[in-house]
Amino acid sequence: MKQITAELLTIGDEILYGQIVDTNSQWMSVELTNIGVKIVRKTSVADKEEEILTAFAEAEKRADVILITGGLGPTSDDITKPCLAKYFNCDLAIHAEALAEVTEFFKSRGRALTEMNRQQAALPTACTKITNPVGTAPGMWFEKDNKVFMSMPGVPHEMKRMIAEQVIPRLKQKYELPVIYHKIIRTIGQGESFLAEKIANWEKALPAHIKLAYLPSLGEVKLRLTCFGNSLALLEQEAEVLTEKLRNIIGSSIYAYGEEPIEVAIGKLLKENGLTLSIAESCTGGNVSHMITSVPGSSEYFQGSIVPYSYDIKMSQLGVKEETLNQYGAVSEQTIREMAVLVRQKFNTSIGIATSGIAGPGGATPDKPVGTVWIAYADGERITTKKLQLSKERHLNIQLSSMAVLNLLRLGIKELTANVQKAVN
Amino acid sequence: MKQITAELLTIGDEILYGQIVDTNSQWMSVELTNIGVKIVRKTSVADKEEEILTAFAEAEKRADVILITGGLGPTSDDITKPCLAKYFNCDLAIHAEALAEVTEFFKSRGRALTEMNRQQAALPTACTKITNPVGTAPGMWFEKDNKVFMSMPGVPHEMKRMIAEQVIPRLKQKYELPVIYHKIIRTIGQGESFLAEKIANWEKALPAHIKLAYLPSLGEVKLRLTCFGNSLALLEQEAEVLTEKLRNIIGSSIYAYGEEPIEVAIGKLLKENGLTLSIAESCTGGNVSHMITSVPGSSEYFQGSIVPYSYDIKMSQLGVKEETLNQYGAVSEQTIREMAVLVRQKFNTSIGIATSGIAGPGGATPDKPVGTVWIAYADGERITTKKLQLSKERHLNIQLSSMAVLNLLRLGIKELTANVQKAVN
Repeated sequence: MKQITAELLTIGDEILYGQIVDTNSQWMSVELTNIGVKIVRKTSVADKEEEILTAFAEAEKRADVILITGGLGPTSDDITKPCLAKYFNCDLAIHAEALAEVTEFFKSRGRALTEMNRQQAALPTACTKITNPVGTAPGMWFEKDNKVFMSMPGVPHEMKRMIAEQVIPRLKQKYELPVIYHKIIRTIGQGESFLAEKIANWEKALPAHIKLAYLPSLGEVKLRLTCFGNSLALLEQEAEVLTEKLRNIIGSSIYAYGEEPIEVAIGKLLKENGLTLSIAESCTGGNVSHMITSVPGSSEYFQGSIVPYSYDIKMSQLGVKEETLNQYGAVSEQTIREMAVLVRQKFNTSIGIATSGIAGPGGATPDKPVGTVWIAYADGERITTKKLQLSKERHLNIQLSSMAVLNLLRLGIKELTANVQKAVN
Repeated sequence: MKQITAELLTIGDEILYGQIVDTNSQWMSVELTNIGVKIVRKTSVADKEEEILTAFAEAEKRADVILITGGLGPTSDDITKPCLAKYFNCDLAIHAEALAEVTEFFKSRGRALTEMNRQQAALPTACTKITNPVGTAPGMWFEKDNKVFMSMPGVPHEMKRMIAEQVIPRLKQKYELPVIYHKIIRTIGQGESFLAEKIANWEKALPAHIKLAYLPSLGEVKLRLTCFGNSLALLEQEAEVLTEKLRNIIGSSIYAYGEEPIEVAIGKLLKENGLTLSIAESCTGGNVSHMITSVPGSSEYFQGSIVPYSYDIKMSQLGVKEETLNQYGAVSEQTIREMAVLVRQKFNTSIGIATSGIAGPGGATPDKPVGTVWIAYADGERITTKKLQLSKERHLNIQLSSMAVLNLLRLGIKELTANVQKAVN
């Protein structure tokens, strides 16, 4: 089987000037690697015809698939389309279907089409138009001597939809690709080196055709098994046997598999068990609610939340006792207990969770440095609290506290539903 | 004056596989652009001799300065050094000073030097050694036909120290560099093509040495002026005159200059005017509060918020009238008015803002499709509301609604403080 190779080509002065970080090419690398396409080069060039045409020609010599992002906007500095037309020796012409789509896009937003917008529907006649379901610039698919050029907008969510829904299925159809199976095991609440030590023997015993990678991110560590072989069914089976062994070692840290972030896993747990949630978040400032409500259908289990940022609001809107605040301060076990219990009562939910801490850079006291955070969980039976000592960085403290309270919630639901199960039996 | 150009070359499989995001090259771009060196290309290649040597030769044809990162580690997959030795046709030999430095590095950490560590002091004899003050792999500076090759470790803080302390001073000494001034003008509330049409004449009249770029992101568009010349003071002055003209055309859309996001600009406005804020956010689910509280010191003006996700909480905790909800629904001008007014009253703040909408994918009705959102602003004198018709994408609707309500808040504060100003005069 021939190794199919790809080059990622980013077009845009803003990348070269360093005005934006190119996160697109990393995302594309992962997606392409996952289907067995090997990235052989990444290139970024300016919005300049000569440089773009040279880059096309060079990439065509090196790779089978050339994935191009950027330079498709409506303004005059965006010249990827005329360059593609020149390279493929064809005209730029209004594409009827693309025009209908861009017209509909603006119509659905109650806006008329300007001439500049209309030009977004002009495409090189040699290409197959790829619909952009979330933007106005269509993608363009070219084939030449068994090679593929695919041009996409640089806007990340537009590019991602095109890659996932159009490019990957088309590449799989066009080329014979090897069988690679990835299994992602998502863990929360333990650091990378702690996990690595716990599973060292399991890792050593992995067969040669299965590789393990640690993918740590804020507050969680994903473990990725990459399995190479000939039969997808067999690889899946092997990975599942290995995962079962892993569950025996670090089962309580595993919260989901694959592309399921913690807020989705928690949504499922709440929904399956008919539980409702409310949140009182101080130091996380709305971020936990934002995470919970980023999940479609979250209104089925999420009733609402309060962000009682000041002492006044903690008392007047949530009902925290003045004595508690005066005696122990807002960042204390006593206050966090009251917050979780009160929000659960006031919002009339099965479960209440709460956060209160010093996100920084201001607000520290001698006994409560920046990064001191209390989190709590309350249901009808149990209240649990936990103290965290995080970092000096505000942004990091907000993210890490959010992940920690969601993990406390997850563990709380597990225990609550296990108790219910016991009571039933 | 000749334009000095640079190419950034990243060496490493981990970049091509997407295991790490390349933030180095963005940082280097900014630093080089700031001293008037033009980045003409960014390239990433694998840890493979043939590809590295080809990339060296290609880069030498295109650029004056070739900045190389990665592939300098002690393990066998790191082959940048032998490749450089081959390219510059010289030997790899232990460099006495480099050996002393690496020995000292390990000694200061109480560790003995292994043979592998010792090899870090082996350098191509054609290079000038550049000290690495925070790591074990020295940098290497090569000159050839008035071109420079500089090889650095890929570890960000090691690379940054070398660029700032060694590379930039050396480049300034070696080449005559132009003066470049960047001005970023941040706008909100209008799309790229709308702005482009409004300022078309202004843009056409820009002198040849000043370039304009549009940098759109969710809910905002940044305009960047890049000015080339001989005197920084003169360029700053010119840019300011142009910006003043721009303010006459799209002044109400401009919210800040430089690296100041909307939540920071709003924080400043609130603080300067001694105003306090509360938020009732339904469809944005906590995201607006999260943005506001991501700013250090936001507790000075932000009192708190409520996320009344369900009808029950809208009534019981915020006080929206049952009749209003029954007659008009949660996503209506009547409800959003009540929400903004009520949160302002209950939280006892100068200003209250509110969001309510159908983020999707569920919850649509025939007359209220997914993406229908109402936002409101209330202070002691005025209430303003606005209906938005956004997208089909939940995530996008949350982000765009958040930006829109922050813009409504910005405009509200502007009017409020202008009225106060008038009353004073």
